[in-house]
Amino acid sequence: MPYRAPVEDYRFIFENVVDMAQVAGTERFADATEDMTSAILTELGKMAEEVLYPIQRNGDLNGAVLENGVVRTSPGYAEAFRAMADGGWLSVSATPEHGGMGLPLVMNTAYNEMVASTCMALGLCPLLTQGQIEALEHHASDALKEMYLPKLISGEWTGTMNLTEPGAGSDVGALKSKAERNDDGSYSVTGQKIFITWGDHDFGGNVCHLVLARLPDGGAGTKGISLFMVPKFLPNEDGSLGERNSLGVVSLEHKLGIHGSPTCVMQFDGAKGWLVGQEHKGMAAMFTMMNNARLSVGVQGVGIAEGALQHAMAYAQEREQMGKIIQHADVRRMLLTMKADTFAARSLVLDCSVALDMANATGEAAWGARAALLTPIAKAFSTDVGMAVAELGVQIHGGMGFIEETGAAQFSRDVRITAIYEGTNGIQAMDLVGRKMMDGGEAAFTLLDEIETHAEQARAVLPELAEPVWQATETLREAVEWMLAQKDMNDRFAGAVPFLTAFGRVLGGHYHLKAAMAEGGNGTRTKVARFYVNRLLPQFGGLLEHAMAGAADLYDITNDELVA
Amino acid sequence: MPYRAPVEDYRFIFENVVDMAQVAGTERFADATEDMTSAILTELGKMAEEVLYPIQRNGDLNGAVLENGVVRTSPGYAEAFRAMADGGWLSVSATPEHGGMGLPLVMNTAYNEMVASTCMALGLCPLLTQGQIEALEHHASDALKEMYLPKLISGEWTGTMNLTEPGAGSDVGALKSKAERNDDGSYSVTGQKIFITWGDHDFGGNVCHLVLARLPDGGAGTKGISLFMVPKFLPNEDGSLGERNSLGVVSLEHKLGIHGSPTCVMQFDGAKGWLVGQEHKGMAAMFTMMNNARLSVGVQGVGIAEGALQHAMAYAQEREQMGKIIQHADVRRMLLTMKADTFAARSLVLDCSVALDMANATGEAAWGARAALLTPIAKAFSTDVGMAVAELGVQIHGGMGFIEETGAAQFSRDVRITAIYEGTNGIQAMDLVGRKMMDGGEAAFTLLDEIETHAEQARAVLPELAEPVWQATETLREAVEWMLAQKDMNDRFAGAVPFLTAFGRVLGGHYHLKAAMAEGGNGTRTKVARFYVNRLLPQFGGLLEHAMAGAADLYDITNDELVA
Repeated sequence: MPYRAPVEDYRFIFENVVDMAQVAGTERFADATEDMTSAILTELGKMAEEVLYPIQRNGDLNGAVLENGVVRTSPGYAEAFRAMADGGWLSVSATPEHGGMGLPLVMNTAYNEMVASTCMALGLCPLLTQGQIEALEHHASDALKEMYLPKLISGEWTGTMNLTEPGAGSDVGALKSKAERNDDGSYSVTGQKIFITWGDHDFGGNVCHLVLARLPDGGAGTKGISLFMVPKFLPNEDGSLGERNSLGVVSLEHKLGIHGSPTCVMQFDGAKGWLVGQEHKGMAAMFTMMNNARLSVGVQGVGIAEGALQHAMAYAQEREQMGKIIQHADVRRMLLTMKADTFAARSLVLDCSVALDMANATGEAAWGARAALLTPIAKAFSTDVGMAVAELGVQIHGGMGFIEETGAAQFSRDVRITAIYEGTNGIQAMDLVGRKMMDGGEAAFTLLDEIETHAEQARAVLPELAEPVWQATETLREAVEWMLAQKDMNDRFAGAVPFLTAFGRVLGGHYHLKAAMAEGGNGTRTKVARFYVNRLLPQFGGLLEHAMAGAADLYDITNDELVA
Repeated sequence: MPYRAPVEDYRFIFENVVDMAQVAGTERFADATEDMTSAILTELGKMAEEVLYPIQRNGDLNGAVLENGVVRTSPGYAEAFRAMADGGWLSVSATPEHGGMGLPLVMNTAYNEMVASTCMALGLCPLLTQGQIEALEHHASDALKEMYLPKLISGEWTGTMNLTEPGAGSDVGALKSKAERNDDGSYSVTGQKIFITWGDHDFGGNVCHLVLARLPDGGAGTKGISLFMVPKFLPNEDGSLGERNSLGVVSLEHKLGIHGSPTCVMQFDGAKGWLVGQEHKGMAAMFTMMNNARLSVGVQGVGIAEGALQHAMAYAQEREQMGKIIQHADVRRMLLTMKADTFAARSLVLDCSVALDMANATGEAAWGARAALLTPIAKAFSTDVGMAVAELGVQIHGGMGFIEETGAAQFSRDVRITAIYEGTNGIQAMDLVGRKMMDGGEAAFTLLDEIETHAEQARAVLPELAEPVWQATETLREAVEWMLAQKDMNDRFAGAVPFLTAFGRVLGGHYHLKAAMAEGGNGTRTKVARFYVNRLLPQFGGLLEHAMAGAADLYDITNDELVA
């Protein structure tokens, strides 16, 4: 059952759900016409189908290994990476100034989804590189930009992100890596970093590490941290590879999934590096990288959901148990859940991408606020959908789902990390009810107003869908107000996760309603929308009750009672 | 972090939630006094902690392998199995007539839970043997009983269950294995069976296969199937091992979890067997085996939940990220969800066990109906809890949860099969809304009446808990009535899974309320009950809306539209 890229769904969503036309209407993205984006989607789809899909299982079965301090990647990965680079796909939304395509981020989202569906493990290498490109574009000196950007954009070199240390995960500020100033303006970086995705490979070229470390006069916590570019090979002035830097891979992790992606423990021993941005302000640069990475991880959730959905659809059409199993009501329920939630999550990450593009293109604060609001929801809701859809995919396979050979389980293993990295989904939820509501709820209320306005317009045509969406939005509004009224942040945090999930559910209802309206309330999308609104949207009630339960009961129980 | 058996929780539930005293009040189980069950729980706990817990990781890392047609089990498994047998734990509820302890099933449930927490993969071997013992006790001839039961009960021999074939999984009636009558009263069995758990091992002794096959004059479907005892070695009259039978292991499956459990493809080539029960009535005997196996699988869900909970609690107490993570609201939410749901699921499987014991001891139809009603809920709800709790355990570990070394991921991989085997959870749900409602809903309404009566009594002491439980039960009652009113079974099946989940949620509320009342509404259990009732119970609303959506929308969409 080969993967088929969901090109048509993208076209439909661009036109009817996220209003891609407004992006093409900006000066910056004037080239992103419907014809152009449509052609790119087709080519992207071909790349994913032909280059990546064939290596997906192989990377799982024959993961990356460390041999004599060097990472050996899975068979076929080097060639596939080169093919992606040659196609220009590593630079979809990087600036043309250094060789990028300069397309809107929304196109990069399409790329990331298709890559995640077909080979998430390899896809992480360019994904991390994209984040590095963005951080350098915004924060690096011209000299660093000229040395690194063209090679990262072309795929000649790759990039990594070195934040985590054994005692510093979600709490980045606790890191212990040190940097010292050298006489020549460079720095020496020393420390150990863990969970470094694609920390090394055998694709050739350089591996460029962005490393967080503390200068001797850097204060405690996140405010005293600086960011450094620390390449595996010190580049000569002409960009050729020079001396080996004093850094290396200590070991690889044995992981639940994404076996093809080498997750490295990195050791830096006075490795030479160059400052990115200002001293002690490394977190700002890192946040640039992490923000878009959060969206990209949400997109991985969508990609895995799509992969698992297609895989299960194929099985359900073939497998006979008292007739083809696709005819059984419970199997249809599972398939429709997968389909409806994948559409909701895809629309959400595209909505967030469009907001980011509009913010970049127009500089309008309202677009920035919309993007900031949607980012944690896009990350957490879409990866939760990815996990749930992959689990349903396993379930549809019955006993065969537990057998690795079928590939159904791989989706569920691979996607598991997406709810954890780039900030766990719990941290996303706390961001949503905390930082993202420091505007007094303005961004949230503006969005809810839009959803209700649309539902009111839709009421004449599709009252049975519009009314529940409006009602759920109104209940969500009350929950937003409840959150804003809590002065003790723990009262917000105590229900942050179900609150975020309910927000995602309501947004999903909104996107499905838009889709149904686009076909005049008559067609396949309306049928799927009906399923979503009648069966999945009603979860919002229980979720919001949970969201507004407050923290008292969580602390009323003592630790001794809790662990008893 | 060593496992600690939840002995105190068992004692509490026995006394306050499932009324174990009534079991001890029957003539058959008069020996199962509080002192006795309490002592047994302590010993069981020791066995699990000392014998099984130490081999859990090893079996995952070094799974069973097939060498020259023979299964080699994981290091330490043979010794642990022997220790379990020597302790007499393989025969907790088998009849004393053939060497069993003759204890109530509820004690076997305690045993199964502790085994699943500490080494589910090995535990499957005695679990399948238990099922076989039960099938033989009920259906085998005296000669077969005398030959096989003492050795199966002592653990000298082990048993398997051979149902599934490549084209016959959920649809057992589609099987193609054939049997022919021999002149000496025995039979010759030919065919291939898949997913045969512990189909072979190197523990010594015999491996006794119960095999479903069709005689030449057996009709089509499930009604023409007979059950045969087909041992690996043909026993001599004195019970010593004779000639090798013509059957063997073709291959082992490469599975997502329970790597220590050899899942075999078995080939029978005219293998000699003996009829169990009557010709063409093999399904009846198989159902005896499967019914209790369903409960046991639910118990595995509880066991994994308990294991994952303890594992996560230990990590949350040690791990520092801006203080010990156990202090963070979102982590407490996760830990309390795990704790509250594990208690609910444990109470459910014990409630079901007590009903089975009462049915066995008294022969009263009402107890049988109660057990029949609770069995699919116990199986599906408890394994869903097992999966969800294991996922939360991974999430609490953050990035470390994705690293196999910590063991958090193993729980989530191992438990995944429990939602699939012994009838997928979808099939359990269909059983609940189908066969289990052929009594016009009597068993369900009787149970709901009991829950409401208890809630009414509790209202004076704990109105804030009793009222929501009563309300949820009333809504569930309406959903039962709705189900009964549907004449097209597909309308029931379309919402069967959310219906079953809601039923489990309501039962959980009932058990938590009982626990809170037992401590007078003041204590740890009341705090956990409050968490459950305020945060988890409210899911019933959305679930029951889904449950009553009917099948029309599932079939309104065509297959072409569905897969598009």
